[in-house]
Amino acid sequence: MTRAERGELQQYLAEQVRVVDRAIEECVPRENVAPESIHRAMRYSLFAGGKRIRPILAIAAARAVSDSPDGIEQAACALELVHTYSLIHDDLPALDNDDLRRGRPTCHKVFGEAIAILAGDALLTLAFEVLGRLCTTAPEQKIRLVEELARAAGTVGGMIGGQVNDLEGEGKRPTARLLESIHRAKTGALLRASARMGGIYAGAAEDELEALSVYGEHVGLAFQIIDDVLDVEEPSEALGKTAGKDQAQQKVTFPAVYGLERSREMAEDERVAAHLALRIFDDRADRLRQIADFIVQRKT
Amino acid sequence: MTRAERGELQQYLAEQVRVVDRAIEECVPRENVAPESIHRAMRYSLFAGGKRIRPILAIAAARAVSDSPDGIEQAACALELVHTYSLIHDDLPALDNDDLRRGRPTCHKVFGEAIAILAGDALLTLAFEVLGRLCTTAPEQKIRLVEELARAAGTVGGMIGGQVNDLEGEGKRPTARLLESIHRAKTGALLRASARMGGIYAGAAEDELEALSVYGEHVGLAFQIIDDVLDVEEPSEALGKTAGKDQAQQKVTFPAVYGLERSREMAEDERVAAHLALRIFDDRADRLRQIADFIVQRKT
Repeated sequence: MTRAERGELQQYLAEQVRVVDRAIEECVPRENVAPESIHRAMRYSLFAGGKRIRPILAIAAARAVSDSPDGIEQAACALELVHTYSLIHDDLPALDNDDLRRGRPTCHKVFGEAIAILAGDALLTLAFEVLGRLCTTAPEQKIRLVEELARAAGTVGGMIGGQVNDLEGEGKRPTARLLESIHRAKTGALLRASARMGGIYAGAAEDELEALSVYGEHVGLAFQIIDDVLDVEEPSEALGKTAGKDQAQQKVTFPAVYGLERSREMAEDERVAAHLALRIFDDRADRLRQIADFIVQRKT
Repeated sequence: MTRAERGELQQYLAEQVRVVDRAIEECVPRENVAPESIHRAMRYSLFAGGKRIRPILAIAAARAVSDSPDGIEQAACALELVHTYSLIHDDLPALDNDDLRRGRPTCHKVFGEAIAILAGDALLTLAFEVLGRLCTTAPEQKIRLVEELARAAGTVGGMIGGQVNDLEGEGKRPTARLLESIHRAKTGALLRASARMGGIYAGAAEDELEALSVYGEHVGLAFQIIDDVLDVEEPSEALGKTAGKDQAQQKVTFPAVYGLERSREMAEDERVAAHLALRIFDDRADRLRQIADFIVQRKT
């Protein structure tokens, strides 16, 4: 990637963040809607400077399939709502017990545990309400989006299943197999669903949807590998969360199993595989290709 | 109600509990599906002897509208999944901190807080997956069910909103207005949605759906009033949960605002109003009428 290309991509991503933020702004009750405390807590965590990688993936996937997937950013919001709920619950004292997230105190630190638990519940619930009331796509597509999101967030091969494996894996011998089972579910499922939901929204044909699935899987794995690597390499200030926690909690991570250098190589392999999966698409999928590159090259 | 009628109703309710239990059994991953701990926790709380009042309401509402609403029990399960998730999270130390539920140790007491939080999350997620994969109704209806359930479980006039008001109401002066705002949302919204979802599933006309809404509101309020009354009157063993907790936690309840006698009268008024709402229905709505009676006369 040349310096000019990198600059252009940064600009595109920044613009997409604004698009997603506007859509989230519209779909979440304002802070002055009762009960105010929960809406404040939901917004506090939603607008904490997230990268919006999941909605951006969904929008780019929809654009790879269709020239004008109007309203896709609304559907894409649902992914960010689910992602944010998972962070809030993940940070709770009973789970990862983290005080810092995206450079700010975590939700339960600011609003207390009770409201943090309920704010997470509310974001998850709202994600499905948002999909239910989309006015820009047919009921058939909407219900497929609901099912896709619910599965990706669920226990069998989904996000919660990955969470449980992650929790129960703490202190266990970090094997390649355990690692794979954790990450394919914990972060991989929702990233894969992001690409697929964009495709579903835009009316992708079967082969297009399959290609987006494979792309999403590789991008998901690349994302997690780099996440693990950054947890080791970067200081807390850069990450905006407590660095080095994986090791302290004896988490099963890529660096723990493969070491840093091999982990980076693996992320690069996933990036290449993600590109390969998109070969049936024309240049309308270029943003998806660039996002795969960005995910591997990011520093936070 | 004569003794014979009461016996027949008991039999009907017991049979409905079996129907609902079978449907839940089918829609929740078995205990030997990985990760096993979370599926065990979900099932522990789901099969703890609940009355299944929400699914039973939904099924009866569907039958009031249509002679054979095939597959309604699957859709009705989603309500019990959401109800059970709310109980698990409600019982957590950070919220009501309850050790006993339906006569058994609460989910977090048995499986730990982390798994209890995730099991609640998983049940909520699964509820939408269940609605998404219903094969017995059209996409239009399915997506309406998703939206209905999400709204009823949400923050604005829904279950979570009621929870927040309930939490923040502890220790406040119990006024009629605060009480109404808590209970209409906390238990009322999901009971109302139960009646409505049955109607939606069965293809209710607008006036039928409106009647079911009004019925559901009255039944919901009656249910909550009696719940509050039983918390005062009945010993823990009969309730299967810690009795007298409302008062200990200075909750805003009907007996606290109106006293026991007036509370019982109010529940009776709600029962009568529930019957009145059903006047446009023929005898196919008799089960709904009986359920309203049962809710007011129950002892647990």
